[in-house]
Amino acid sequence: MLSQIKETAIYVRDLQRTKAFYADVLGLPLIGERGGRHVFFRVGPSILLCFNAEATRDEVDVPRHFGEGELHLAFEAEAGRYDEIKAKLEEAGVEIEAELSWPRGGRSFYFRDPDRHCLEVVEPGIWGD
Amino acid sequence: MLSQIKETAIYVRDLQRTKAFYADVLGLPLIGERGGRHVFFRVGPSILLCFNAEATRDEVDVPRHFGEGELHLAFEAEAGRYDEIKAKLEEAGVEIEAELSWPRGGRSFYFRDPDRHCLEVVEPGIWGD
Repeated sequence: MLSQIKETAIYVRDLQRTKAFYADVLGLPLIGERGGRHVFFRVGPSILLCFNAEATRDEVDVPRHFGEGELHLAFEAEAGRYDEIKAKLEEAGVEIEAELSWPRGGRSFYFRDPDRHCLEVVEPGIWGD
Repeated sequence: MLSQIKETAIYVRDLQRTKAFYADVLGLPLIGERGGRHVFFRVGPSILLCFNAEATRDEVDVPRHFGEGELHLAFEAEAGRYDEIKAKLEEAGVEIEAELSWPRGGRSFYFRDPDRHCLEVVEPGIWGD
C-alpha cells in the first residue's frame, strides 16, 4: 500500500548553516525555505525536511513534531559514483568518520552534518534490492 | 550524485510494540531484527530503521546516533490507494490527527506511532514530481 518513504525530517539549530551544507557541499537542490522554520531539499524521489524544532514544536495548524539528538539517515549513491562522492566530500573538508563493507555486498561511509546528525552514503544494492 | 534517501531512522522505546505497529497495522515487511537494538522494515525502495536509542547511543563499532522527540516522516501511498489506506488504519483503531490538501494538489493525513512519532501518508505528486 505504501510505495516509499517520501519525506524524512531532521531538526537543526541554524537553518543557514544547514542550507550551506546540504546545498553547497552535498549538492542537493533547495526546494523550499521559510525563514526561522525550515529548509527543504530534493534527493531524487525523496524529500529531506530540515526543521527548526523550536518552530515546529508548538505549531497548531499542522500536527506538531520535533526532535533532538544525532539522528541517522542514509543517502544512496548513484550507480558507480560512490568513490567520486566520497572524494568530493573530503575535498570540501568533510571528515569521513568510518567506512564499512556490508554482508550483502556494497560499502558505505559515514560523516556528520553541522548538527552532528549521522549521515551515511551507501552503494546501491546494499539492502539486497 | 545522490539518488534517494535510502534509510530513515526513528528511535523507539519498545521494539516489540514498534514491530506490531509497523508490521501488523501498516503492513510493512520486517527485514531485520536484533533484540534490544532494532527492527528494520522495507518500504518499497526505502528502509525504515527503528532503533532503541539506549543501544545505539554508546556504540563504538559503528558511528553512534540517537534521538528523542516526536519525529516526522511521510510515506507515499501507492497511486489510487490513499483512501483505502486511511480506511484501513481507521479500522485498526488508529486516530487520524489531521488531513490537509496541499497547494500543488494532493492530500495527506497524519497519525501517530506508539512513540508519538508524527507519521503522514501523502498522495503521489504532492511535491510536484
